[in-house]
Amino acid sequence: MSESDALRDLYRAYIDCLNRRAWPELGRHVHDDVRYNGECVGLPGYRAMLEHDVRDIPDLRFDIAFVMAEPPHIACRLRFDVTPAGRFMGVAVDGRRIAFNENVFYRFEAGRIVEVWSVIDKAAIEAQLA
Amino acid sequence: MSESDALRDLYRAYIDCLNRRAWPELGRHVHDDVRYNGECVGLPGYRAMLEHDVRDIPDLRFDIAFVMAEPPHIACRLRFDVTPAGRFMGVAVDGRRIAFNENVFYRFEAGRIVEVWSVIDKAAIEAQLA
Repeated sequence: MSESDALRDLYRAYIDCLNRRAWPELGRHVHDDVRYNGECVGLPGYRAMLEHDVRDIPDLRFDIAFVMAEPPHIACRLRFDVTPAGRFMGVAVDGRRIAFNENVFYRFEAGRIVEVWSVIDKAAIEAQLA
Repeated sequence: MSESDALRDLYRAYIDCLNRRAWPELGRHVHDDVRYNGECVGLPGYRAMLEHDVRDIPDLRFDIAFVMAEPPHIACRLRFDVTPAGRFMGVAVDGRRIAFNENVFYRFEAGRIVEVWSVIDKAAIEAQLA
């Protein structure tokens, strides 16, 4: 298996962990000192962010539309097709179904995610609700 | 030079073309049937989109914060530090300076971009103007 394929497998295991809501396992995939969009949130902050997302979006599911690997980096286009209960990203979704993408980069260190740079397509969400 | 480095060089030449506003050269970098976020806009539509962006943002400059290559794909985090004259992405920026990122994927075919999947960080723009 190439180094790229091995990294892709690690990434898929991380996404599977999120979809199982297996929060106690998160530390296997995410570094203690993880940074998110330039801010050091750490593993507890990262977990809190995910738990918050799942509270806001009970049917949250991470689908990999497209993934690239160039070790130690992964780039992924994630696809969401979900029904946030109330507000999401400041938009009053209120139980309506929305589909949108997140384009996100990760840096891995010793098999765990140590840095994340994410952009979520808020404009697409607003366009669907307009 | 590796295939990945060669693709990165092609990508940097495309970004340089944009920063020089060298629209007549755009067809060297972008395929006639280019698709943008799932829509076949074609080279004329792609060029019109860029010209429109430059009209709205006279000091538009594309800076590569981070780039990954896994041929035939490129993933890039672009950084913008600009002053849109009026509205941008539906936000009344009105000459204020804003900094934001775009996370974007490209598929190349025979040396030209044939597909683009882009997400611009609208939430970051709104946060700066709030």
